[in-house]
Amino acid sequence: MNIAILFGGSSFEHEISIVSAITMKKVLKKSTLTFIFVDKEREFYLVEGQAMKSTHFSSGDYKKDKKLTLKRGGFFAEGMFGSKKLAFDIALNLIHGRDGEDGKIASLMEFFGIPFISPRTEASVLSYNKLYTKLFAESLGVKVVPYQHLSKSSERKLTLSYPVIIKPVRLGSSIGVSVVKSEAELDYALDVAFEFDSDVVIEPFIEGVREYNQAGCKTDTWELSIVEEPQKEAFLDFEKKYMDFARDSRVMEADIDDVLKEKIRESFKKIYDPLFLGSLMRCDFFVVDNEVLLNEINPIPGSMANYLFEDFEGVIGRLAKHLPKEKAITIDYHYIHSIQSAKGKA
Amino acid sequence: MNIAILFGGSSFEHEISIVSAITMKKVLKKSTLTFIFVDKEREFYLVEGQAMKSTHFSSGDYKKDKKLTLKRGGFFAEGMFGSKKLAFDIALNLIHGRDGEDGKIASLMEFFGIPFISPRTEASVLSYNKLYTKLFAESLGVKVVPYQHLSKSSERKLTLSYPVIIKPVRLGSSIGVSVVKSEAELDYALDVAFEFDSDVVIEPFIEGVREYNQAGCKTDTWELSIVEEPQKEAFLDFEKKYMDFARDSRVMEADIDDVLKEKIRESFKKIYDPLFLGSLMRCDFFVVDNEVLLNEINPIPGSMANYLFEDFEGVIGRLAKHLPKEKAITIDYHYIHSIQSAKGKA
Repeated sequence: MNIAILFGGSSFEHEISIVSAITMKKVLKKSTLTFIFVDKEREFYLVEGQAMKSTHFSSGDYKKDKKLTLKRGGFFAEGMFGSKKLAFDIALNLIHGRDGEDGKIASLMEFFGIPFISPRTEASVLSYNKLYTKLFAESLGVKVVPYQHLSKSSERKLTLSYPVIIKPVRLGSSIGVSVVKSEAELDYALDVAFEFDSDVVIEPFIEGVREYNQAGCKTDTWELSIVEEPQKEAFLDFEKKYMDFARDSRVMEADIDDVLKEKIRESFKKIYDPLFLGSLMRCDFFVVDNEVLLNEINPIPGSMANYLFEDFEGVIGRLAKHLPKEKAITIDYHYIHSIQSAKGKA
Repeated sequence: MNIAILFGGSSFEHEISIVSAITMKKVLKKSTLTFIFVDKEREFYLVEGQAMKSTHFSSGDYKKDKKLTLKRGGFFAEGMFGSKKLAFDIALNLIHGRDGEDGKIASLMEFFGIPFISPRTEASVLSYNKLYTKLFAESLGVKVVPYQHLSKSSERKLTLSYPVIIKPVRLGSSIGVSVVKSEAELDYALDVAFEFDSDVVIEPFIEGVREYNQAGCKTDTWELSIVEEPQKEAFLDFEKKYMDFARDSRVMEADIDDVLKEKIRESFKKIYDPLFLGSLMRCDFFVVDNEVLLNEINPIPGSMANYLFEDFEGVIGRLAKHLPKEKAITIDYHYIHSIQSAKGKA
């Protein structure tokens, strides 16, 4: 299979997307990979496999690569003899943060009719925004970490007790996130968060909370990863998370009982099906008093959470064959014809 | 001002979008209009103003028009001497239903850096899906018409009393909508609705409910239309709504007291700001027991609800100058540089 890896993007996570894309070279060994880089100006470039090193991008060398144009049915390289369509079977959206996770890339792929692995536009919007994620999960009966929502213009009055964690609603990778231990620190932390977003969610910060990650997708059956208990710091800062996106070796399964594991999996499935069909995503859960609470959805997890799967490449291959199909719409100008007839102008 | 009217789209409402676009010729008289047609295959065509008649599209004549390619910064016509950018100041997204209202066109415009009037991607997704609209409105403290949500796989058990109205969550213009008077009719109506969507919302059908429409936008100030009490039938079927999209003459203001009018306007403002900035939208409210309930959001109303404004063209002109700006993101390869230094490879 020939997989086009879409990476980069106009995103705070542009650089970690490059790291994720490089990791794909190591974990998708049986596939042919076509690398399509979206630079910060949102121009598309075709990058040769051997050029897939981080310096190729940080140095600006990529600008010598072939530029691509997105048109009906695919990406095209313009050349002496006209426009040539890039050959691949499926695109894998690996752009973290803005563009990739906010619905723009999904919209582009769907509009131009390119088969793609990624959350669709609706799933992207609901998972990119942490407030909407909570509304959505609660509507499905999935419990979430308790929260308070504040807008830039809201009164800065907390209903939760300290310590709390403040998160801009729309960013990933801990950008603009602060742990606030007392009221004295609140204003500064909110100022920081509001630099990045008009809205924040505030949650109780639970020291040493048990956290479990579940990745997976649905093909003709459920393809769920092992459940991982990630290593915890107070919370991961951007540089630590960055390194995390280069992971390519398997991790240990969390040591939890089958009942809890089943609860985690049921919550994952409720969230995934049907909204996230076509994607391979990761959900991060907290377990408090033996109750499973959704913490966050990672619709395009770092390095696609490959390290959680026994046979990552096989999962991707099967997912590529089980994508949601866009509903066909017949446009036959029935109404225009009938109105023209009524007017006697047909 | 030169306004590019984007219309058509791969949508059940493709034809009424054509009608809306033709109406713009009559109501935006002082502006230069550039018509960009999105055909059912999602190819872009530049349509001359004098060709803007419904037969031009229903006959397929538009296929002789100049094809356009969407690239960074605009739409381009390919010619003998290379690629030429179409000149306009702003695009007005007038694609009703899929593509236009589901976030795809907004994503395209934002990705390619074209200034545009339309709900942004996030606002599109939340208003295109009637279930998410309800979750969103309730989270803002705006009351909604009571409802029950059913999925294709749910048990078909109603908690509401008859008569009810069943609506597919994702379609506009009454497609797939049924009024159900008794349990005997329920299965058939659900079968119809599930032909169009995986999810439905079911609401009490209130005979003769008072309905009021409020359109508007925010520029440097609120630009609200008059409040209209639309003419009611049991509910408008597709053909009646279709004719409605050609409206271009002012309507009478609803005869309601100032207190109620103010309640309607306050609800509109809560929903609009900040999510819908950049759009001119219409909200449809029900008034039950003197309480204002959101019925639906029309993020791209038929003929842009021009008939509700004293000076529609002036509103569009001011809105074009007050669009939300995308946050600038600096990508300086700081992390890649620092990791390369640490590795001694810089």
